[in-house]
Amino acid sequence: MARTDFTRMRCPIARAMAVLGERWAILVMREAFYGTTRFDDFQRQLGIATNILSARLGSLVEHGLLERVPAEGGRHAYRLTEKGRDFFPAFVAIKRWGDRWMGDPAGPVVRLLDPDTGEDLEVSPLVGAAGRPLGPETVRFAPGPGAGETMRRRFGGAECQEKDVTVG
Amino acid sequence: MARTDFTRMRCPIARAMAVLGERWAILVMREAFYGTTRFDDFQRQLGIATNILSARLGSLVEHGLLERVPAEGGRHAYRLTEKGRDFFPAFVAIKRWGDRWMGDPAGPVVRLLDPDTGEDLEVSPLVGAAGRPLGPETVRFAPGPGAGETMRRRFGGAECQEKDVTVG
Repeated sequence: MARTDFTRMRCPIARAMAVLGERWAILVMREAFYGTTRFDDFQRQLGIATNILSARLGSLVEHGLLERVPAEGGRHAYRLTEKGRDFFPAFVAIKRWGDRWMGDPAGPVVRLLDPDTGEDLEVSPLVGAAGRPLGPETVRFAPGPGAGETMRRRFGGAECQEKDVTVG
Repeated sequence: MARTDFTRMRCPIARAMAVLGERWAILVMREAFYGTTRFDDFQRQLGIATNILSARLGSLVEHGLLERVPAEGGRHAYRLTEKGRDFFPAFVAIKRWGDRWMGDPAGPVVRLLDPDTGEDLEVSPLVGAAGRPLGPETVRFAPGPGAGETMRRRFGGAECQEKDVTVG
């Protein structure tokens, strides 16, 4: 079976995985968030093979999370775009999960601090309007405006009954 | 260069990538969050090659995000563990980013609704105690208790000056 082209999939999470669903991609973004901009510094911080780093940076530039700009000495710098910067909350959430479930007993390697208080950043848990904590079993899933018929049938519920079910 | 063993890396995010840094892994988790438990249903919803699905489910079970339990008909079901369920906020954050930056103009394929209000889930932006929105350029990074000397030197600031810098 040929390798699936994730960018052609309907699900935006799948399209996100086209660029981020690779072991090094989020670690390259980690470095970008920590302030790294130069190829050599990415390479040194990550201990990553240069050909893999080139490919990852190229992919992140192609998908618009980083931009490659000229820098001193005829070299280049890789800077966060708005799209890349906007991934930071997802990175923070992944980091929180990694620190909790995959960390050393010693504790996190890096702390994220509130610049105004110097305290660890508080990330609000997922709660509903009534203050109830929400998880996959309590959140309601519904088809969105971009959903096709299959998704409407899967999650349709009341929305499905109220709308014409159009093919697509 | 031999393939790096991410589980042996110090950074918990890197260890998270050992199981999640692969194109299909988060999509398998997507299905688990949406309520899928049976191999055949994962396969049908994702359109994924069965050997790849077996490998992904096996990896998620090995890393404790899913557990494989006997089910009707001598088959098995794959259920979220607490560790897997706790990844949901990170999934929601990735989905938010994917919907915003990789979605169709039509809008999201799936909506996450507050079960109490029927409205779209509100995900609080990353803000500090003073209400200021925070991003990678404004958050402060500091070495955590699990940090070795390299990390302390990188982010040390005041903490580095106050502590003995021990090798590690």
